[in-house]
Amino acid sequence: MMIVMKESATTDQVEAVVRQVEHVGARAHVSKGELHTVIGAIGDREHVANLELDGMPGVDHVVPITRPYKLASLQFKREEYSVFDIGGRKVGGNNFMMIAGPCTIESRDQMLTAAAAVHEAGAQLLRGGAYKPRTSPYSFQGLGEGGLRLLAEAREETGMPVVTELMDVRDLEPILEVADVIQVGARNMQNYTLLTEIGRAGRPVILKRGLSAQLEELLMAAEYVLKEGNEEVILCERGIRTFESGYRFTLDLMAIPVLKQHTHLPVIVDPSHAAGRRDLVLPMSMAAAAAGADGVIVEVHPDPEHAICDGPQQLRTTEFEHYLRQVEAAASLAGKEVAAKV
Amino acid sequence: MMIVMKESATTDQVEAVVRQVEHVGARAHVSKGELHTVIGAIGDREHVANLELDGMPGVDHVVPITRPYKLASLQFKREEYSVFDIGGRKVGGNNFMMIAGPCTIESRDQMLTAAAAVHEAGAQLLRGGAYKPRTSPYSFQGLGEGGLRLLAEAREETGMPVVTELMDVRDLEPILEVADVIQVGARNMQNYTLLTEIGRAGRPVILKRGLSAQLEELLMAAEYVLKEGNEEVILCERGIRTFESGYRFTLDLMAIPVLKQHTHLPVIVDPSHAAGRRDLVLPMSMAAAAAGADGVIVEVHPDPEHAICDGPQQLRTTEFEHYLRQVEAAASLAGKEVAAKV
Amino acid sequence: MMIVMKESATTDQVEAVVRQVEHVGARAHVSKGELHTVIGAIGDREHVANLELDGMPGVDHVVPITRPYKLASLQFKREEYSVFDIGGRKVGGNNFMMIAGPCTIESRDQMLTAAAAVHEAGAQLLRGGAYKPRTSPYSFQGLGEGGLRLLAEAREETGMPVVTELMDVRDLEPILEVADVIQVGARNMQNYTLLTEIGRAGRPVILKRGLSAQLEELLMAAEYVLKEGNEEVILCERGIRTFESGYRFTLDLMAIPVLKQHTHLPVIVDPSHAAGRRDLVLPMSMAAAAAGADGVIVEVHPDPEHAICDGPQQLRTTEFEHYLRQVEAAASLAGKEVAAKV
Amino acid sequence: MMIVMKESATTDQVEAVVRQVEHVGARAHVSKGELHTVIGAIGDREHVANLELDGMPGVDHVVPITRPYKLASLQFKREEYSVFDIGGRKVGGNNFMMIAGPCTIESRDQMLTAAAAVHEAGAQLLRGGAYKPRTSPYSFQGLGEGGLRLLAEAREETGMPVVTELMDVRDLEPILEVADVIQVGARNMQNYTLLTEIGRAGRPVILKRGLSAQLEELLMAAEYVLKEGNEEVILCERGIRTFESGYRFTLDLMAIPVLKQHTHLPVIVDPSHAAGRRDLVLPMSMAAAAAGADGVIVEVHPDPEHAICDGPQQLRTTEFEHYLRQVEAAASLAGKEVAAKV
Repeated sequence: MMIVMKESATTDQVEAVVRQVEHVGARAHVSKGELHTVIGAIGDREHVANLELDGMPGVDHVVPITRPYKLASLQFKREEYSVFDIGGRKVGGNNFMMIAGPCTIESRDQMLTAAAAVHEAGAQLLRGGAYKPRTSPYSFQGLGEGGLRLLAEAREETGMPVVTELMDVRDLEPILEVADVIQVGARNMQNYTLLTEIGRAGRPVILKRGLSAQLEELLMAAEYVLKEGNEEVILCERGIRTFESGYRFTLDLMAIPVLKQHTHLPVIVDPSHAAGRRDLVLPMSMAAAAAGADGVIVEVHPDPEHAICDGPQQLRTTEFEHYLRQVEAAASLAGKEVAAKV
Repeated sequence: MMIVMKESATTDQVEAVVRQVEHVGARAHVSKGELHTVIGAIGDREHVANLELDGMPGVDHVVPITRPYKLASLQFKREEYSVFDIGGRKVGGNNFMMIAGPCTIESRDQMLTAAAAVHEAGAQLLRGGAYKPRTSPYSFQGLGEGGLRLLAEAREETGMPVVTELMDVRDLEPILEVADVIQVGARNMQNYTLLTEIGRAGRPVILKRGLSAQLEELLMAAEYVLKEGNEEVILCERGIRTFESGYRFTLDLMAIPVLKQHTHLPVIVDPSHAAGRRDLVLPMSMAAAAAGADGVIVEVHPDPEHAICDGPQQLRTTEFEHYLRQVEAAASLAGKEVAAKV
Repeated sequence: MMIVMKESATTDQVEAVVRQVEHVGARAHVSKGELHTVIGAIGDREHVANLELDGMPGVDHVVPITRPYKLASLQFKREEYSVFDIGGRKVGGNNFMMIAGPCTIESRDQMLTAAAAVHEAGAQLLRGGAYKPRTSPYSFQGLGEGGLRLLAEAREETGMPVVTELMDVRDLEPILEVADVIQVGARNMQNYTLLTEIGRAGRPVILKRGLSAQLEELLMAAEYVLKEGNEEVILCERGIRTFESGYRFTLDLMAIPVLKQHTHLPVIVDPSHAAGRRDLVLPMSMAAAAAGADGVIVEVHPDPEHAICDGPQQLRTTEFEHYLRQVEAAASLAGKEVAAKV
Repeated sequence: MMIVMKESATTDQVEAVVRQVEHVGARAHVSKGELHTVIGAIGDREHVANLELDGMPGVDHVVPITRPYKLASLQFKREEYSVFDIGGRKVGGNNFMMIAGPCTIESRDQMLTAAAAVHEAGAQLLRGGAYKPRTSPYSFQGLGEGGLRLLAEAREETGMPVVTELMDVRDLEPILEVADVIQVGARNMQNYTLLTEIGRAGRPVILKRGLSAQLEELLMAAEYVLKEGNEEVILCERGIRTFESGYRFTLDLMAIPVLKQHTHLPVIVDPSHAAGRRDLVLPMSMAAAAAGADGVIVEVHPDPEHAICDGPQQLRTTEFEHYLRQVEAAASLAGKEVAAKV
């Protein structure tokens, strides 16, 4: 940590900062510039993190030097990317993973039809929501445990591992009975209770970036899971809030190469929620793959016009195979191997 | 809801939309303009809300007409602002409420000193955090139930009602034993599980606006609580995320008069978290009061230099009385009555 | 335009709005819903645009129906994309254009070396800045007319058409003597004086999206040029401002497919300024091409470590050929033809 | 400037950075932490500003220490706020200035009626637009020189100094004949040509913050004017772009106290353009004054329902006096003196 003193800072003020640095067990390193004195606080992460010097007399501003996450950092894995094996399907490193299925589990027929179609086309993982976070309390909130049972049936029929969302720690047990991967939604990215419990559960997790979360905060959220001993965290970019009102969210694909410079964790992209419109899903999925994403999670429905929620953004099962081939081609171009159909 | 068709839309496409509108039990009202045909879908809120027409052939875009919240709307209370009585202190209408206390409960001495100071100066409610949401899993997470006991002691000593944050539904019971008001943090604004349980608990709640939540989403989050029968929701603006990096968050004071046009619920402001710096707290509190806020929630500490967290943003107990008088003067100017000291 | 009345609006208020609509020469079409009365104002674009009803008694809000641009719209060209021929090189439709060269023209040697390299590798257009918009008045402001002469020399040596930025209407004449394409920077996107003069000059223009411009505003800026009779406007996404501080700007690639739904004008992407870092340029260029961009404008320098400005974001001439092949492959995947080397 | 090296940086990489620092004439100061080596580059502002080290091998990131503006800094004036005298009216320090008048000059009658009303109520400066920046080329672009003549007449009748907007350097001369203060609009904040010419013209200027400009950029724009010898720059906050779609812009009042920590220049606020709605103007003006603004610039019209542009946001002349008294009371509370009526 570097403490930049004001130009007008007195010697006493500099010394007071030095004492404060030494008080928390760190070493202080004073360097006088032409205009500013700068004090380096050198010591272990925790000690220095507890220094709150912003308000002290004579302090202009404080600059952190060390990144606040550790287990999520690329360096922690000695610059090697993690590869996770989920029921025989790989994600991370040079493995590209397609995750597909309906937004919400609505009925047996809908779930099994969608599952068969994405399996047939060659997707690796099956998605389906049983508990749905909805902006309105008046909207359909998901089939709950009934939905989990349909998901389990689809898993058995297709042999595909499945991913579903957890919203409430009290639902963890039934979800652990069915899900190969747990999803944490964007609005729960900083639900620290949920993250800690998933960390303890030891099941792979897809962690979605919050609507206005900085990448460093996403990595700190991952750190909550990793700290409990769960190493399998997949990060997911799904669009951020900006002033542009022409589409639902702004998909931030620059997050992909930037995250890959800082973390060993796989990075996937959800184009369906970002766009909110079917016609943007193919170009944005191809762009994500071309930018180096480790996978895509996409929504597919046999009859989107009659979907209970988010119909307009779901791909049709009939167009999914063509979609998948295009996205795989873009992933190949970015150096990924595309898994053979299982 | 208005469905605007493309200029190139065919008669068949218009008819398909009409059928879809009628399919959900609403009435369709077609009006042909020079360029566009516009279809009005008229019916009750729930039916129309389930129409998902964005992807249909020939549809250009869909415009919602009716607001999606009901119980939170000003009209639901026939244009009268709600006033809540919390242990004899009032908030809402023309009552201004000052809520003050330490960010985090750190020790008996710190809690009781701060409580005595804010009580003496004339604050109405006492705040103090026992469970702390922290970006880093390595940071201090609060004293938990031990903190609640200290808060209860401060409540008894001063006679002030107290507010504290709930992060995990499993902590609801111990918090209900102590807290007169429950706080929901910005990162939990869309934690629907938490909102529903608080709705059932029937205790007044301060609901903080999420870091990138639109006002309509804040009102929908309030609706989750109201729908369970809990009428006492206080909305709190605490700064939003923008591109400006000169301060932690951008305090959005325009939210105050705009919310007051749409909802009967009281609106307060948290300047401490928005600014992250003590020297901005007084001007922004005065600005909030002058803009018509129903109250301010502010952090006060007897020794901020040695606070465990967020020291730089906490007011000193010694400066609190002067601060409070200034803020009250601004509130008076905006037409509020300031409560006499209890 | 649709005027949504408040639920509490009186008959008199509805009638007053109707009169106002008719006053500007438009027709009013009243439709009563269960909660709201909605009034459609039907008439030609200009008349309706002058209606300012937001403040009228009883009016809840006003919803525009017709888009405010006309010449830029896809429909104006009957759903066909424009293709521009610039000195024998094509952009738009299924033609992909690579524009490359140094950020700033620094010296004869630097300009000619960069030009030879990008020409050799197969770029279609050559870029180079003679007038530089700089945040600081103390920074290097470009070589001015001396720079233009070096650009003319590079043009002659390589035979490539050239693009350079115009900042001041008073520099239009010397620039017209050299430039095949004029560039308007992001900070000048709404410099209406400049846009109008370029419209009159009739030279093709690359119009960069402002740092916080909505797509509709970008199209309105294009409309300023088109309205003067200049049909050759190329739109350029170059990153927008968001809360993310991990990189300079957030490249908004969703703008590509969305713009292509609304306008016939070609859409290119500038990854260099968005990223500010060389290592992000290749993945983001590939992503742009995969998303359907009509071209990329990228910065290339023979010795970026000693560049006068923006060195860290400029590709090295030695790596440009490999870069170009990768981007072309992504463009092919998105259905573009890549021009043969001239 | 501090250069933070990667944890994996080699001694050679550190030495290469040191050489580069010394190459531009600065001194390098190496300090080794437990994880990172940090190199301080010490020297004069210009030399260090030309260091572009972000891309160098082994460099993690670069942290600027010294602020990039100088003439605008509070320290340049030895921590004293500037006070400008404009035709006998003062702004800055503890002087509060109310600037009012119509958005656009539409007719002799409208201009003179508005001028008389704001003069009568006690405003200090008169505003009125003759050249209007409009998003659409089809909108009314202002009366131009005819408007300037009406403004001159209003100036003569009331004795009030006047402010009007300059958009094109070619209009500078006619504007200098009439205007006591020149206004630079938000969209021209980084029109460096315009800023430089105004700097040379030596007339006081109101410089509006760009829609997504950081405060440091606003100060750098002011520096362009100051550098030419024109000392009288008034900064103006007028709302920024955020994700909130409930109002036109988000008025960033935290900018007021923060700017006052960094610059000696006066800071005023434009609530009319930020809100776009008359009913928000009073609360936001009071909030601005309470936060310590040096003035407010507000739009007033005798008949806003028939205004040619921005009618919904303009105050009525009949309500202006009450408005002014309320805003003055808030300014007094924040420690300002309110000028006696002239």
